[in-house]
Amino acid sequence: MALIIQKYGGTSVGTIERIQAVADRVIQTKKQGNQVVVVLSAMSGETDRLLSLAKALSHTPTPRELDVLLSTGEQVTIALLSMALEEKGYPAVSYTGGQVHIRTDNEHNKARIVDIEAARVHKKLDEGKIVVVAGFQGIDEDGNITTLGRGGSDTTAVAMAAALKADECRIYTDVDGVYTADPRIVQNAQRLPLITYEEMLEMASLGSKVLQIRSVEFARKYNVNLRVLSSFEDGPGTLIALEDDDQMEKPVVSGIAFNRDEAKLTIRGIPDQPGVAYKVLGAISEANIEIDVIVQNVAKDNSATITFTVHRNDLIKASELLEQIAADLGAMEVASDDRIVKVSIVGVGMRSHAGVAAKMFEALAAEGINIQLITTSEIKITVVIEERYLELAVRSLHSAFGLEQ
Amino acid sequence: MALIIQKYGGTSVGTIERIQAVADRVIQTKKQGNQVVVVLSAMSGETDRLLSLAKALSHTPTPRELDVLLSTGEQVTIALLSMALEEKGYPAVSYTGGQVHIRTDNEHNKARIVDIEAARVHKKLDEGKIVVVAGFQGIDEDGNITTLGRGGSDTTAVAMAAALKADECRIYTDVDGVYTADPRIVQNAQRLPLITYEEMLEMASLGSKVLQIRSVEFARKYNVNLRVLSSFEDGPGTLIALEDDDQMEKPVVSGIAFNRDEAKLTIRGIPDQPGVAYKVLGAISEANIEIDVIVQNVAKDNSATITFTVHRNDLIKASELLEQIAADLGAMEVASDDRIVKVSIVGVGMRSHAGVAAKMFEALAAEGINIQLITTSEIKITVVIEERYLELAVRSLHSAFGLEQ
Repeated sequence: MALIIQKYGGTSVGTIERIQAVADRVIQTKKQGNQVVVVLSAMSGETDRLLSLAKALSHTPTPRELDVLLSTGEQVTIALLSMALEEKGYPAVSYTGGQVHIRTDNEHNKARIVDIEAARVHKKLDEGKIVVVAGFQGIDEDGNITTLGRGGSDTTAVAMAAALKADECRIYTDVDGVYTADPRIVQNAQRLPLITYEEMLEMASLGSKVLQIRSVEFARKYNVNLRVLSSFEDGPGTLIALEDDDQMEKPVVSGIAFNRDEAKLTIRGIPDQPGVAYKVLGAISEANIEIDVIVQNVAKDNSATITFTVHRNDLIKASELLEQIAADLGAMEVASDDRIVKVSIVGVGMRSHAGVAAKMFEALAAEGINIQLITTSEIKITVVIEERYLELAVRSLHSAFGLEQ
Repeated sequence: MALIIQKYGGTSVGTIERIQAVADRVIQTKKQGNQVVVVLSAMSGETDRLLSLAKALSHTPTPRELDVLLSTGEQVTIALLSMALEEKGYPAVSYTGGQVHIRTDNEHNKARIVDIEAARVHKKLDEGKIVVVAGFQGIDEDGNITTLGRGGSDTTAVAMAAALKADECRIYTDVDGVYTADPRIVQNAQRLPLITYEEMLEMASLGSKVLQIRSVEFARKYNVNLRVLSSFEDGPGTLIALEDDDQMEKPVVSGIAFNRDEAKLTIRGIPDQPGVAYKVLGAISEANIEIDVIVQNVAKDNSATITFTVHRNDLIKASELLEQIAADLGAMEVASDDRIVKVSIVGVGMRSHAGVAAKMFEALAAEGINIQLITTSEIKITVVIEERYLELAVRSLHSAFGLEQ
């Protein structure tokens, strides 16, 4: 008998009919002889409805009270699903975050899980019940209701899997798994049956928004087998787990990811002295602007050039700051460009394979795509290119690394 | 410094604007130097909305899960009012039934309060905070969410007042107090400044639906000063409390109450043997039909006649049962009448005053109103009369006992 955690998002429980469908899927898993714990989000639209009530009363609602308010959303869905399960003849019991002792710190609206009391859930599972838990919420040590912030329900599901030592944590979404590339761009993109945590993290950070990064980090930390599946159709989905050493023919590259939300800034002709990178990037960070790719190199005349990317929404603010910094440092020029994209190849296979980078650059060159920046990590090579080449680059890389097979 | 409990019903918190108005009223009381605990119902309509979701999934939703679902209604309003208070510069903190340890038995959907942990609330009050508590809900000893059933929020308010030893428990409603008679029938009906628990219980049981009977019983048991006031206008309302011994000129009769929801059943010619009343009324009760007034007497031929009243909705079912019973017992005849009303005079004063009943019967006789049944208790005399005389009877009694002054 396996213990399975299933997590359904707001769209999957958005109507009475969909809650019925979720109940059927849960029962199917139960009938296969498994113990099942279900983690739910609020009905889609409900959180926004509650937020608008709060905003009508206050521009900056008290964080503690906002959590009391928002946590009702999941409390509604856990009660409704439990009723649906009972109506279909399957004993079920619902728990709020507080009831199942999902202990968090006291950072309201963005709390982090500290501990989960597993005993109560195990007891109900051993009695043959299906346990339905409210995602996104917990309590701090004083009994105040907290919420986990964006993607919180995924994190609840993974934390629950870790605490209960579940065999698998299944996240049901509107896609049927993780693909070698975005199927809207690459028609013959393939669903990956297996992907490592590290690869998933790189994919997620590049905009493959199947899972919240935080829940993947959590799963990696506690070695939880995480599976992404479709709420609406059957299928094995994609398993996110430790690398399988037995897999002889692991492909070098698992997938092609991209991100078109960034813009590029360059400051040229800075006198190359120790601390220059800090002077430039420290000021940007202090303004609460997140910096992503950073590349620095030195010209013939010993002046330095620093190029970095930020979110497009931050471009104007970052440009203004950079002009000031350039004046202070006596730099030559500042340039910015918001018509760029990041494209990456991701794969744990590339660690031990020479020539992966060369093959990537070759494929892009063959299409006449100029590479503006390059950064590398152990399992990822990222290039920044002109935005208009995005689709062409992704397709050519997908083909170059044989991902259509 | 007094400690005041204020309870607002669903209509009073039905919109953002009304929540703002409640916040202003709470602040006004706080500014007068009082400590304030607020008990709230769900926004009007919300409980019905949640119920309809449940009913769409199951004709008989699991009672435990129904409580998980319905209790979200008050959780929303306590968060919103707390935000409104904070926004207006008054520190507030909200508590669900579970958080403030409103311990109940485990009778889901109609739980009874066992205990309330007062320490946490006192601590917050002493810190200068306004405490906002969800009405209608609690937790059982296993931490399951329970609800108190109809009128539960009034009961929460009174229980909170008893646990905190509050100076007064104020119930805000859509009327501005308890009247000597229904003002829609008696134009010069007067608001009563003071009424005893016993009188209020009699008035409530007769259809003066200002307060739930249960909360008045609770208030009497713990000697809580209960005040009924209007949510929408200022005024002293009506205080429900112990009889004031100093009040020399306490009027004999406090008010005229009535109930038009009942129907009358009569079974005649039953052989008068021990146990006959039980045989007749036991069978009715077993069918879960509530019996109100019961009158039995014996005819010349030693056969018994039993007359009783039931809710009009139960009349058909009760009639059918009574026909069977009559056949079994060899009774002569069964009759029913749903065009009757109960009219009562209520007042602790009548205990020690002779001639009150006579004055009542005289007033009715003067209007040509025939009395069908009479029952009496220490503080109430009830008659059953033809429905068409209702308004005439109430007005003539109101005038006969001088209640217009």
